[in-house]
Parts: sequence; C-alpha cells; structure tokens
Amino acid sequence: MAKNQCISISVIKRLPRYHRFLGELLTKGVKRISSRELAQTMKLTASQIRQDLNCFGGFGQQGYGYNVELLYHEIANILGLHDKVKTIVIGAGNLGKAIVNIDFNKLGFDLIGIFERDPLLQGTTINGQVVQCSQQIEHFCKENQVEVAVLCVPKESANTLVELLISLGIKAFWNYSHYDIGVYYDDIVVENVHLSDSLMTLSYRVKDFKKNNEIKF
Amino acid sequence: MAKNQCISISVIKRLPRYHRFLGELLTKGVKRISSRELAQTMKLTASQIRQDLNCFGGFGQQGYGYNVELLYHEIANILGLHDKVKTIVIGAGNLGKAIVNIDFNKLGFDLIGIFERDPLLQGTTINGQVVQCSQQIEHFCKENQVEVAVLCVPKESANTLVELLISLGIKAFWNYSHYDIGVYYDDIVVENVHLSDSLMTLSYRVKDFKKNNEIKF
Repeated sequence: MAKNQCISISVIKRLPRYHRFLGELLTKGVKRISSRELAQTMKLTASQIRQDLNCFGGFGQQGYGYNVELLYHEIANILGLHDKVKTIVIGAGNLGKAIVNIDFNKLGFDLIGIFERDPLLQGTTINGQVVQCSQQIEHFCKENQVEVAVLCVPKESANTLVELLISLGIKAFWNYSHYDIGVYYDDIVVENVHLSDSLMTLSYRVKDFKKNNEIKF
Repeated sequence: MAKNQCISISVIKRLPRYHRFLGELLTKGVKRISSRELAQTMKLTASQIRQDLNCFGGFGQQGYGYNVELLYHEIANILGLHDKVKTIVIGAGNLGKAIVNIDFNKLGFDLIGIFERDPLLQGTTINGQVVQCSQQIEHFCKENQVEVAVLCVPKESANTLVELLISLGIKAFWNYSHYDIGVYYDDIVVENVHLSDSLMTLSYRVKDFKKNNEIKF
C-alpha cells in the first residue's frame, strides 16, 4: 500500500534506476535482497534505500529484506508502467528514429503515431510504424485522443507546434527541443531532455576533475 | 572572480539553462537585465537567481542588474565551454548520428573520431566525420590522447568497452548506455543520459497529473 505524502521529485527520479537494477536481479534469479546488499549493488547507502522505499509503504521486512519480484512490480505500478497512454512522436530525423526504437509499451505508453514535415521521410517505416505527414497531426489527435507528445524537433518549430498540440488537448510532453514549454504554459506535464545542457554539465565536471586532480588528461 | 566553495551539482546543472536564456537575450539585443526580469523570463524566483550566481561571485550590481554579455561569457567560462577536450563517439546508429550533430565545439569539446562495429556504417560520413571501425579505437586513443568518450552503444557492449577505454586513460564518459559505469569504477567522471529512465519519470508524472486533476485525458 503506497503512502504518497512524502514523495519528492528527486525520489521519483530515482525509481527508474531501482526498477532497472531489480529487473537485472530478477533475470539473475535473485529472489530476495537486503537493503544493505541492494545498496552495495547500486552504490547507494542502505538508509537512503529504506528512506526512498518507505515513501511508498516500505515493502521490506525486518530480517528478510525485500522480495525482489514483488518490489519490481510495485515500483512498476507506482511508475504507471502498466498504463497505455496514447502517445505520438513528432520529428523522424536521427533523434526521432532513436526515440521510436525505445520500448514505449514497456514504459507506460502506447506509441500510435510518428509525424515528420520532411517529405523524404514521410512514408518510411521505423520500428513497424509508418511516418506520417505532420499536416495530419490535427486530424490524427482529434480522431485518436492522443495524450502525450514527444518533441524531436528544432526549437524554431516547437513554438507553434506546442500551441497547436495544447489546443488539441495534449497535456504532457517529452521534450527534446530547446523550447522551454513550462515557461509559457501552466497545468501541463513537461519532462525535458536537453542533451546540450547535459553536455555542458559534463564540460564543467571534466574541467573540475582536471583541476582537483591537477592533471592534464 | 569565482568563489567556488558553495557550488553544488544542482547549481551546476542549472547553469546551462542560464547560458541558453542569456544567449537568447543577447540575440535579441538586450544589454542588461535585473534579477527580477531574468526570473520572470526563466520562471524562477529572483532570490534563487541571486543565490545561484552568488556562488560564482555575483556578477550583478545593485540598481543596475546584470550585464547580459558579461554574464553569458562568465557562465561559459565557468562551464569550460571554451575548452577543447578531445572526444570520441562510439556507436553510429540513429542515436549516435543525432549526437554527432550536436555542436560539440561550442560546448567545450573537440570531437575527433566516431567508431562503429557495424561494417555497413563504417566509412559513411556524419557531420563531416568518417565513421571508423571500432577495432581502431585502441590505436586511435593511443595516438590522439583522447580524453572523453560518448557511449551510444547497447548495455551488452558497454561493459568490455568501458574496461578498454579506462585502460587507455579515458577519464570521462557521456553515457547513453544502460551500463552504470559509476557503480564499477571510481575516479572517473560520468554524465548519464538514461532516456528510458526519463520516460518512466514522465509516466509517473502523467499518472500523478491525471489523479490530481481527476481527469481522463
């Protein structure tokens, strides 16, 4: 039974990692694990793990540890991975192609359409789905009650596209564009993946690492 | 003048976003901005901005605000964006292709090689660079003192690849594989981009949004 009062976004962001590690343990046939052993495997502290999982009601038993399969499925439930939220991907360039190859179905989403404005890419097939003309988006969303849009488009296109999608009732975005949707719209869910921000963070950390170790690479 | 004592990783992770917004203001010809105006633009609080930038010595002047160009360049300096850290990308599938099209040069890195084990992709050109056979990695790293590796490979390949790269002196990874490098190695820099973890977080947030708004999408 989940007790959801204490859940911060940083706890939520750690859950997928628990899910991955528990999935690996399951594959290896591990039936149960103590918080200490799980901590060693994941390079966390045992108290961090107990604290995180207590947010959802614990799942562990004193002297027994965690039932790996149960915990794996409980985390999947918490994350909504058994849901089938209707989703479209917009942009079928290299990034869009890479994204479409992710197993959406295992992660809570039902990927039902891919759209692209470049005529050369329209009609091609990615992971079993035919790429449609982006002018079809409006009709498609109205017909299919699309819930989530994945934006694999440049910043310049994102502005008017987001306006259209929100007018069509889309409430959640997985956003790879550099358009900061959350700055302009309230009451929507935006999960940003800003790849160049991540690369800049790496740049800082590399520079800092060199300085602290007084090395030239 | 930077005073680096108080910098947490969460402050660092916000710097690229400041850099992006300041770049846009520069393009629009904005010369100076108050922390209140910058806060409105970025949907942060003015005190959060002052607190973040104070970590590096402030840059603002009472009654004047921030000099946009100066602050933009200072943040670029802090992030090391003028460095040219020698970098290779491994994996030239769709994701690798998308990654290679990022402007590494503007973000602190010098992308000097792309490697792939699929013979069909070897010899092709991405963004002006010829894709090399992954068996050349060892020789290339020894010849060129490569400092950073970008891993666009599946988890199964990452294990032995990371072992090789670390033996060749590589100390930093931009890691798109699901192999948790930091669990197995100390004294290296790893910036992970786990796309499916991000998608699972979105799944949770969509589910939570629906519950809180008591709506069916």
